[in-house]
Amino acid sequence: MSKDKKDIAVIAVSGGMDSCVTAAIAGLNFELAFAHINYGQRTEKRELKSFNDIADFYNVDKRLVIDYTHLAKIGGSSLTDKNIEVTKADLANKEIPTSYVPFRNANILSACVSWAEVLNAKAVFIGAVYEDSSGYPDCRPSFFEAFEKMIVEGTKPSTKIKIETPIINFSKAEIVKKGIQLGAPLNLTWSCYQNEEEACGICDSCALRLRGFQIAGVDDPIKYAARPVYI
Amino acid sequence: MSKDKKDIAVIAVSGGMDSCVTAAIAGLNFELAFAHINYGQRTEKRELKSFNDIADFYNVDKRLVIDYTHLAKIGGSSLTDKNIEVTKADLANKEIPTSYVPFRNANILSACVSWAEVLNAKAVFIGAVYEDSSGYPDCRPSFFEAFEKMIVEGTKPSTKIKIETPIINFSKAEIVKKGIQLGAPLNLTWSCYQNEEEACGICDSCALRLRGFQIAGVDDPIKYAARPVYI
Repeated sequence: MSKDKKDIAVIAVSGGMDSCVTAAIAGLNFELAFAHINYGQRTEKRELKSFNDIADFYNVDKRLVIDYTHLAKIGGSSLTDKNIEVTKADLANKEIPTSYVPFRNANILSACVSWAEVLNAKAVFIGAVYEDSSGYPDCRPSFFEAFEKMIVEGTKPSTKIKIETPIINFSKAEIVKKGIQLGAPLNLTWSCYQNEEEACGICDSCALRLRGFQIAGVDDPIKYAARPVYI
Repeated sequence: MSKDKKDIAVIAVSGGMDSCVTAAIAGLNFELAFAHINYGQRTEKRELKSFNDIADFYNVDKRLVIDYTHLAKIGGSSLTDKNIEVTKADLANKEIPTSYVPFRNANILSACVSWAEVLNAKAVFIGAVYEDSSGYPDCRPSFFEAFEKMIVEGTKPSTKIKIETPIINFSKAEIVKKGIQLGAPLNLTWSCYQNEEEACGICDSCALRLRGFQIAGVDDPIKYAARPVYI
């Protein structure tokens, strides 16, 4: 067996399917360090359970749970503000949905990069999806490119941290297939923006996920209150 | 009197002299919204008092206190990790000092931009100082330029937020003079990285501040345990 020590990568793990598959991809080449952000979302408890379940599955010791509840204080999103309704899925809609948390990924990545600099990690992975996404501006490839340039300017000269978005051009169906191919524990993940016991099946996030499984021709292993057909 | 409503600017206010003078400058053209970041620094209680005192002075209603204590969990800095000694001032030293909190300003600005996007603010001001600074990479002008480009990519198309660093090329003496010229409440500010009752006078931050007042030929109105001469 090789005794070469792998470089560390920090993975932003929400507990959802996308971050789980991203972790599976990163684990092929890196030692994993898992960061989870609690930004005051409705389903945080359930997401944190998934985060820890996935971390256990991959035997990840380095775990950091970051309280970003200021994002809930700021408001402006149905994910964190109970006065704003969670949009029902409208997958043809090109507007930015109410679930958009302003500049969320910049907050997540900044914390991950701080940790990565201390760990001497070489990469930060985030499971952002652009093509099949809900239209969040902070999921665009150009955003991550700009962020990577900003890291170079804002960290020590010896720090070399890449931002990796390995599934950014994947459809949800491709994410499902990649997860199954890599043996990722999709049964441990949570994606619903609305419920914590059974996934609702009708919020944006559930709709995108279910459609992905349906296109891939695979049964989603988690429980749903409703399983509409989206294809 | 004009009834024109001023645009809002979010100001990152630590409670130190630099952010106080930055707020004074921003207040010339903007309605002020004050954000304070608790990143688990030793002197947070005292800094928060200064934040609120300065906000009271400027009649600021919009206040946001952000708990970034994950930066303390991450460690890597003498400001947040009690196992790392606060460096005694060595103003000729060109190394990055132990007080460097990895990628701190990216974390601060990300939160401020999230809030600014919800408030429909047009600018985020931060009192970073480069020329006379302690050598933090996330205080370089190139860092702020890269950050501003990243905002364009990561926020809604309708969002237009500039990053303003009005004192970045000021010496500490110039900051003192500008603060006095604008009537900024320097007596309410706190800069010491070490103590909360009386400023120590010997940490990096105290040394830079005292030298600034000494060069400006003005008495620093706050209390010090020791007032070495730095010029």
